[in-house]
Amino acid sequence: MSINDNLSLVLHKTGDLRLENKELPIATEPGPNEVLCKTHSCGICGSDISLWKKGGIGQYVINQPQVLGHECSALVVKVGVNVKHLVAGDRVAIEPAVPCRRCNYCKTGIYNHCPMANIQLKGVPPMPGMLCRQFTHPADFCFKLPANITYEEGAMVEPLTVAVQAVRRVKLTIGQSVLICGAGTIGQMCLAVAKAYGAAKVIITDINEFRLNVAKQMGADQTILIDPTKSSTDDGIDDIIHQILGNERGQGVDVTLECTGSENSTQVAINSTRKAGKVGLIGLGPQQVTVPLVTVAIRELDIVGVFTYRNCFPMAIHLLETGKVNIKSLVTHKYRLEQSMDAFNKMIEPDNNAIKIQIQCNKDF
Amino acid sequence: MSINDNLSLVLHKTGDLRLENKELPIATEPGPNEVLCKTHSCGICGSDISLWKKGGIGQYVINQPQVLGHECSALVVKVGVNVKHLVAGDRVAIEPAVPCRRCNYCKTGIYNHCPMANIQLKGVPPMPGMLCRQFTHPADFCFKLPANITYEEGAMVEPLTVAVQAVRRVKLTIGQSVLICGAGTIGQMCLAVAKAYGAAKVIITDINEFRLNVAKQMGADQTILIDPTKSSTDDGIDDIIHQILGNERGQGVDVTLECTGSENSTQVAINSTRKAGKVGLIGLGPQQVTVPLVTVAIRELDIVGVFTYRNCFPMAIHLLETGKVNIKSLVTHKYRLEQSMDAFNKMIEPDNNAIKIQIQCNKDF
Amino acid sequence: MSINDNLSLVLHKTGDLRLENKELPIATEPGPNEVLCKTHSCGICGSDISLWKKGGIGQYVINQPQVLGHECSALVVKVGVNVKHLVAGDRVAIEPAVPCRRCNYCKTGIYNHCPMANIQLKGVPPMPGMLCRQFTHPADFCFKLPANITYEEGAMVEPLTVAVQAVRRVKLTIGQSVLICGAGTIGQMCLAVAKAYGAAKVIITDINEFRLNVAKQMGADQTILIDPTKSSTDDGIDDIIHQILGNERGQGVDVTLECTGSENSTQVAINSTRKAGKVGLIGLGPQQVTVPLVTVAIRELDIVGVFTYRNCFPMAIHLLETGKVNIKSLVTHKYRLEQSMDAFNKMIEPDNNAIKIQIQCNKDF
Amino acid sequence: MSINDNLSLVLHKTGDLRLENKELPIATEPGPNEVLCKTHSCGICGSDISLWKKGGIGQYVINQPQVLGHECSALVVKVGVNVKHLVAGDRVAIEPAVPCRRCNYCKTGIYNHCPMANIQLKGVPPMPGMLCRQFTHPADFCFKLPANITYEEGAMVEPLTVAVQAVRRVKLTIGQSVLICGAGTIGQMCLAVAKAYGAAKVIITDINEFRLNVAKQMGADQTILIDPTKSSTDDGIDDIIHQILGNERGQGVDVTLECTGSENSTQVAINSTRKAGKVGLIGLGPQQVTVPLVTVAIRELDIVGVFTYRNCFPMAIHLLETGKVNIKSLVTHKYRLEQSMDAFNKMIEPDNNAIKIQIQCNKDF
Repeated sequence: MSINDNLSLVLHKTGDLRLENKELPIATEPGPNEVLCKTHSCGICGSDISLWKKGGIGQYVINQPQVLGHECSALVVKVGVNVKHLVAGDRVAIEPAVPCRRCNYCKTGIYNHCPMANIQLKGVPPMPGMLCRQFTHPADFCFKLPANITYEEGAMVEPLTVAVQAVRRVKLTIGQSVLICGAGTIGQMCLAVAKAYGAAKVIITDINEFRLNVAKQMGADQTILIDPTKSSTDDGIDDIIHQILGNERGQGVDVTLECTGSENSTQVAINSTRKAGKVGLIGLGPQQVTVPLVTVAIRELDIVGVFTYRNCFPMAIHLLETGKVNIKSLVTHKYRLEQSMDAFNKMIEPDNNAIKIQIQCNKDF
Repeated sequence: MSINDNLSLVLHKTGDLRLENKELPIATEPGPNEVLCKTHSCGICGSDISLWKKGGIGQYVINQPQVLGHECSALVVKVGVNVKHLVAGDRVAIEPAVPCRRCNYCKTGIYNHCPMANIQLKGVPPMPGMLCRQFTHPADFCFKLPANITYEEGAMVEPLTVAVQAVRRVKLTIGQSVLICGAGTIGQMCLAVAKAYGAAKVIITDINEFRLNVAKQMGADQTILIDPTKSSTDDGIDDIIHQILGNERGQGVDVTLECTGSENSTQVAINSTRKAGKVGLIGLGPQQVTVPLVTVAIRELDIVGVFTYRNCFPMAIHLLETGKVNIKSLVTHKYRLEQSMDAFNKMIEPDNNAIKIQIQCNKDF
Repeated sequence: MSINDNLSLVLHKTGDLRLENKELPIATEPGPNEVLCKTHSCGICGSDISLWKKGGIGQYVINQPQVLGHECSALVVKVGVNVKHLVAGDRVAIEPAVPCRRCNYCKTGIYNHCPMANIQLKGVPPMPGMLCRQFTHPADFCFKLPANITYEEGAMVEPLTVAVQAVRRVKLTIGQSVLICGAGTIGQMCLAVAKAYGAAKVIITDINEFRLNVAKQMGADQTILIDPTKSSTDDGIDDIIHQILGNERGQGVDVTLECTGSENSTQVAINSTRKAGKVGLIGLGPQQVTVPLVTVAIRELDIVGVFTYRNCFPMAIHLLETGKVNIKSLVTHKYRLEQSMDAFNKMIEPDNNAIKIQIQCNKDF
Repeated sequence: MSINDNLSLVLHKTGDLRLENKELPIATEPGPNEVLCKTHSCGICGSDISLWKKGGIGQYVINQPQVLGHECSALVVKVGVNVKHLVAGDRVAIEPAVPCRRCNYCKTGIYNHCPMANIQLKGVPPMPGMLCRQFTHPADFCFKLPANITYEEGAMVEPLTVAVQAVRRVKLTIGQSVLICGAGTIGQMCLAVAKAYGAAKVIITDINEFRLNVAKQMGADQTILIDPTKSSTDDGIDDIIHQILGNERGQGVDVTLECTGSENSTQVAINSTRKAGKVGLIGLGPQQVTVPLVTVAIRELDIVGVFTYRNCFPMAIHLLETGKVNIKSLVTHKYRLEQSMDAFNKMIEPDNNAIKIQIQCNKDF
């Protein structure tokens, strides 16, 4: 399993994505608390497309050549001297953002807000990603995959943890009714995790019928096709939602998970949630949206932001291992590292009927 | 202390407010779990003005003659047969909205969301208020005032409980930095309660310098005069706030209490709150506001609605009794029931330098 | 469906249990917020046996003839004028303890601590129970059974809610390891509810092999037969528990639910729970037990008392309706009201291999 | 400010405590994330006495020569290259137990349960303490003292954080009634912090009248002298407590902080706490105690263990800086490092009327 090349998918600047042998020396030796890994599968995320086509996403901007890839499963090749919980040959899912471990956010357990976690997020500027052959990573941010989880599923753990974080942030509990706005990868993950956490009834919306059909197969109790040309108040979504729930819960769902960031959808989210209910904001949309905050006040809603994840990898792996969540069908396309440009081009193809496209980065395991 | 008249302040329709002897029979006999009370002091609320001038506020609309008044202290005149914790002669603060006690909201302790609590809210359509001589009320929604709390303060307990509810909803705790948007009655109450709960530093904003001066006397650590002609991004408020807090807390306050409902102020609220911080929405503004929800997501803020109060009267009275909160100076004007129209007209006078205007409804105690 | 008799199971004094036509007039008319019900099934509880044989249980003592029965399903025969959510013909589970609705405990949602809830607990002195033909009850403490829940299951809702309360009190969440001490009715219920709430692994102990076999069928991952002649430190239970969990969780289970009240078992509960874990005390044992509280301090355990239930009936019914919990097999014996003495005698028979014995109180539905 | 000696207080084995020039090389250079500090004041803790006289405390046993001292304030002499928040010349309080930063406990913010935190606890075997001239320490476990906090107070921060942890663990909030069992250093600290957090009424017990007098000066609302020869049920403590609270709160205090670990006192703690109240176990007593756990179950108490502290130093310093807590008077005796044996001997003198004895470890600042 020797590495003869340093093939990587490198974003040089907006629109300039290249598959190339990186000039940087290949990682070969883990530090004392690190492991050396060979990348197996790496998913492409919407943020990768934004980096490629727009040169940035939110606070992250391309200033220098950047290896992409942050949704990754890998094989442990070598472990550092202090590493106890992993051995060479273990298969792992990678938590890509490594915090400083010393600031107040880290010490209070909300390390996803550590400033270093944003700087040390593999695959996002300025930190090289994992769409390459091999890399080192802190061992405690590598999570062993049980035998019954494939590498393909392993590379889905990262997006799955976003859903775990969302479901935890809104304190979703057994028996609750849930509205999910948006049936992309994260929406589907939220659907799966909400069901695993015992959601009684899950309604999901999207503007794309293919995604809604996938959602039905994933266990959605009801799907609603949104007409994006209509406003949230004209389209009768609220009525449909209330009708589906019947009189059981009264005037809305217990919890809404908004996975689009769009204004229209956020309005639906707020209007559809019952008094004292919760709305999780997972999708990132435009800087400013117009929403009925007076409804938030009167109903005493909790609108809770969701940003990446913290301490969610063990739970995501537990959900997969026990079959409480099954996301195999969401990996709709696979490419080899050498075909990376095809994979990225597929992502931007209209009506590609893709949920998750993955790239396999090594041949020999 | 006999009642010879039934003088009440009755709103007949939009703009038509009359001081008159109500035709309805005067309350004289409490039910088994009720007390009969003589109104002492009753504060005028912004919502009273909205009812008077606009014929409604939110969901509450004037359809028939309506006695106003929901911020009330009173003397217990007679107690029902089942009443144990009060006796004739007790002085009480009145919690005006009485829930059904049987629905899911009531049984889980969030009775402010009981549909009946909105229908049985004394002083708001369709329930007659307490700007009159005498009324009956459920005994468990009457809270005994300790000897060291005056009737005037007692009539301030109702607005004070809104601040208690706000501070509880955002889980404000000792040592936190707090931004309060708006220095009207509720903003001042929030300031006082935040300080009592141990807030380390309280910054308060308003467009009115008189109110900010009152806030300084109430203990605000910093006041900021807002220029309403400037947008929230142009006015540099965020910079000022960050400057005041120094490097201690990093990028914003721990907690913001938004008491205006205005769009500009809500933007300031969100932009000024640190990662993993909380924003309470207390003020009720326009149906739709444009706000940076993407910031809510990325910072994982909790935006929590605040609507009236539940189980807050004992705490509000405790704060007054122990001197942890002192709101005496907020009662800036007093009138007699016979002068009610003057009191209401004072409320709408420009630059009236009023915080709270109260009406005293009986002569003889 | 007319009622021609008033047959009831009446406990006159310690040891003196009689099936008789009560002299008291039979309930025939519901109050405005009440329903009139015909009892269908009523389970016998360990506390009924204690009342019968010892003349009391805890604070409840027999002072006058007392109809027993508090685990009851029933048919609604007539509804009071204010009742909206039920109609004659509905099948219901009965929450037997009715609180005052006015005290601080009631208003904050912890109505199981309302002093009146203890006095107004049907089937426990001084409140007549439901081992009779017909009774009235507040409608909001009657919970409609969906079509797919039988009356037999409906009479299991009351004990099931104890497990719901326990699981909520310890905040049991998906993926946690759980130790349940005691495999009687409540232990089995806790097992079922813990599984429904997503417990990853449930270990259960008992001194009786029959019960452990039932627990296996109910889904226990591991059972441990306790030798009551050995002390908790000698019997190696801790070692067995740690061995079962392997290295996954380290030094103990996440959560323990102690359902026996015995000293030995409570020691096992504390010793077997990991740092920062939780122990629920559900079983009621001797007044004083000797336990390693220093371990509670050092591990920062939370030892949480569990007493009856509050707001748990809707969840218990949800669990049954959706099949997340299946407790049909726990009803091991059924008798008719006329055979009540046989049913009670069965309860005290050694090695009766009974989990739950129920009495059916009417013939005609 | 050069260091010419390595004078340290070294415990060689049970009973063998020596003031000596350690053979180990003196610390002179901080690591990249460390600071080099000169010890100013160091308090003597009951655990130091246990180590000295019994050769161990709990899990910690003397196996090799051990420098004592874990309650320390110090002067920063030099900072490591990565250190941003401290500079030479800063005065700091030291959090002595340094966790691994990588385990699940660390990453979820409960680092006081990290196994390494027990091994890397300065002043407790096997980690050398701070009763010496100079030491290095991770910079993020050194907390800058504001100008208005003296070194003597700074060395009180460590025990004060135990009280902060206790008050947080029981979620003590404004207006609550509190019983504190034991008026030693930690009990006094708990009293001060409970008051700062808004406790309405604090009752404190002890077997020593001197300590109770100190507690009165510290703001205790009521003190109770315990007769240790009487059992907890005979001594009428419960009656006294209930009498003091009157009928306000009903049947007990909201919160009890048990700071003795003794059986008698723990019984009082449980019996004196109201339904749905909380009991914090801070004191470490005998391995087994006999207590009324059935009362814990019936009242649904939360018995919560308290072990050291996590993320409490900033709050403790805030309490001192703002004057919300004043513990100056608790430092009853001061010695120089050269007089350490006198200081330790004073600690074990009967009726020494000492609360906190401190040792000052350097002459020149």
